[in-house]
Amino acid sequence: MLTLDKVYQASYILKEVIRKTDLIRASHICEESKLYLKTENLQVTGSFKVRGAYFKMSQLSEEEKKRGVIACSAGNHAQGVALAAKKNGIPAIICLPDSAPISKVEATKSYGAEVRLVNGCYDDAYAEAMRLKDEKGYTFIHPFNDENVIAGQGTIGLEILDQLPDVDAVIVPVGGGGLISGIAHTVKTLRPECKVYGVQAAGAPSMANSLREHEILTLPAVSTVADGIAVKTPGDLTYACCEQYVDEIVTVSDDEISSAILALIEQQKMITEGAGAVSVAAAMFGKVPIEGKKVVCVLSGGNIDVTILSRVIKRGLLTSGRTCNLNIELIDKPGQLLGVSKIISDLRGNVISVHHERSSEGSDINGCYLRLLLETRDYAHVQEIRGALLDAGYHLID
Amino acid sequence: MLTLDKVYQASYILKEVIRKTDLIRASHICEESKLYLKTENLQVTGSFKVRGAYFKMSQLSEEEKKRGVIACSAGNHAQGVALAAKKNGIPAIICLPDSAPISKVEATKSYGAEVRLVNGCYDDAYAEAMRLKDEKGYTFIHPFNDENVIAGQGTIGLEILDQLPDVDAVIVPVGGGGLISGIAHTVKTLRPECKVYGVQAAGAPSMANSLREHEILTLPAVSTVADGIAVKTPGDLTYACCEQYVDEIVTVSDDEISSAILALIEQQKMITEGAGAVSVAAAMFGKVPIEGKKVVCVLSGGNIDVTILSRVIKRGLLTSGRTCNLNIELIDKPGQLLGVSKIISDLRGNVISVHHERSSEGSDINGCYLRLLLETRDYAHVQEIRGALLDAGYHLID
Repeated sequence: MLTLDKVYQASYILKEVIRKTDLIRASHICEESKLYLKTENLQVTGSFKVRGAYFKMSQLSEEEKKRGVIACSAGNHAQGVALAAKKNGIPAIICLPDSAPISKVEATKSYGAEVRLVNGCYDDAYAEAMRLKDEKGYTFIHPFNDENVIAGQGTIGLEILDQLPDVDAVIVPVGGGGLISGIAHTVKTLRPECKVYGVQAAGAPSMANSLREHEILTLPAVSTVADGIAVKTPGDLTYACCEQYVDEIVTVSDDEISSAILALIEQQKMITEGAGAVSVAAAMFGKVPIEGKKVVCVLSGGNIDVTILSRVIKRGLLTSGRTCNLNIELIDKPGQLLGVSKIISDLRGNVISVHHERSSEGSDINGCYLRLLLETRDYAHVQEIRGALLDAGYHLID
Repeated sequence: MLTLDKVYQASYILKEVIRKTDLIRASHICEESKLYLKTENLQVTGSFKVRGAYFKMSQLSEEEKKRGVIACSAGNHAQGVALAAKKNGIPAIICLPDSAPISKVEATKSYGAEVRLVNGCYDDAYAEAMRLKDEKGYTFIHPFNDENVIAGQGTIGLEILDQLPDVDAVIVPVGGGGLISGIAHTVKTLRPECKVYGVQAAGAPSMANSLREHEILTLPAVSTVADGIAVKTPGDLTYACCEQYVDEIVTVSDDEISSAILALIEQQKMITEGAGAVSVAAAMFGKVPIEGKKVVCVLSGGNIDVTILSRVIKRGLLTSGRTCNLNIELIDKPGQLLGVSKIISDLRGNVISVHHERSSEGSDINGCYLRLLLETRDYAHVQEIRGALLDAGYHLID
């Protein structure tokens, strides 16, 4: 059974390995409440996962340590297990589907684990891990459904209560539920009046659905930019913990997650992965009742692929009206570009890119298209520019 | 005269306004030395500038406070002054050239300062600030050449010595020289054996040149991605401080700065602006003798425009071999795309985008171009893929 004793023990054992990550006040992200960020994206390995993995391994017998551990993950759990094994002096094998991004494979290797790429998807990699576990006697390190793993993640709850003793609410990303189970157990045991909210991606609401239906449900498929919490089935331990300690689990869309990632970059100068930003997305988009409260959003991780990051930034800028695409149909004669440029310049729109195209298939034979990417202040600014172009007789295409 | 007393006084006064920013160990950025990051990019307003501005304002007479302050800046200083004025209850006007990026203007306004956009460049904005200062009796807050401003920045030196008492070297970004003057004075006074290195952008080496020639020199022009340290002329106070306390000032290129920004994103999950990353660039690219040492890199700020950030990420990925562009000339017949795809797939390159173009002006009438953007592991991987395509008879164009 999970006890506070175990969490305190984990906290002591983790001292030499992990960082007590900073709790940072975020003044501009959500004006309605006093928002604080628990920055586990700045944790070693870039996520909280190392806490649970390290504590779990520290509790193995000498015999088990000698045989080694195995895990199956393409993400933060892989890196957490790899570093924890290295620090414990334990051999580790990580099974990954061979479709895993290069950057994740390299990161896992860099912490000293042996990486085994398995042909197929996650389930194939998992089957291979199970096969090796049985064949070689490795200990399987579960990413969330394990009491010691949960106790390790619970140390974040202790730190939050130390850093902000009068916290009113904690908002936590939820995938399999290991993180929120640890935090909720700790926070509710020590400070029952503090609310604990979970957040899942709208495309992977396994725990939310399960709690609503009062039984553990498996999603047929998951799809979200927050790959770190795209879990089809909650664990039984984590399900029980959530049912007992969590106040509510809400969901956020991929667009909301992208906006949160962008806000954290611009306002807080921090990188979070999709899963790491769902807590902030929930606060930004009013999914949880936190007005006037002291609220901690857990940023669970920062391991986002930079190519995905580029896309998220682009999308976030568009959805917040900070950039805008204009497609304008022009008559192909001199002076047209000048006319458009003047209107945009007078309204202080900043042209980032211009694409001028003649004789594309859909257009009039004398016509041409002008595609502009503008930097703008906000939605109102976009509407102002579009309105002025329409007033001047230009034809805008969506 | 700048004294340690004044720095301690600033440290006390700043307590209620600024964050004592975390000192974070960066294990993977530079393997040769023990690197720590002083994260002033996570400071309120996103840069260290608020320290000097706030302390400076706290030292004004009641009469001066009532009249208000004025500053001229398109960047971190503007935001630092704006917040410091608000916290001190002082009216503030910030003069900006009207070419300043929208995001910076909005950020400055958001801290409550009055923004005056001046037609022209920085010098025009400066002239307008001086005119207003004389006309209205505002106090001008200099961005660097002011003893109290320097003392405020010196508090970073106190924090570093508190967080890492046995530090061997500190690496500091240098623009006008206010930051390094404060830090060098403090560190060298308390721990003379600690080295203090400055870093400038290769496109704006005003302090480096001045120190080498033993007189204050003005650059005819500056050009760098690190706009926060693009200063043409050092101050006389900061020049004297650097001459007395700084061991060496080195320079880094824009490509080196981009790589450092990318490394900080990927390894440390933090956003730095160009100026903020030059210290890490100097460490990464061996510009300073720090092998085996305990080194603190000051990350001075994180206020980078996200559109520039996108470009920097792209450039950093290309220069580190993490992505690669291939231009392949094909005969326009079926099966060509398949052949190329197979070679790339077999070598585990990951195709991000494909652009297939016929009848572009330079090409053979039967030919076409295939442009691919690939995700790759590193330079060796890029060469492997290029080699395999050449071996198979494809024609690569640079």
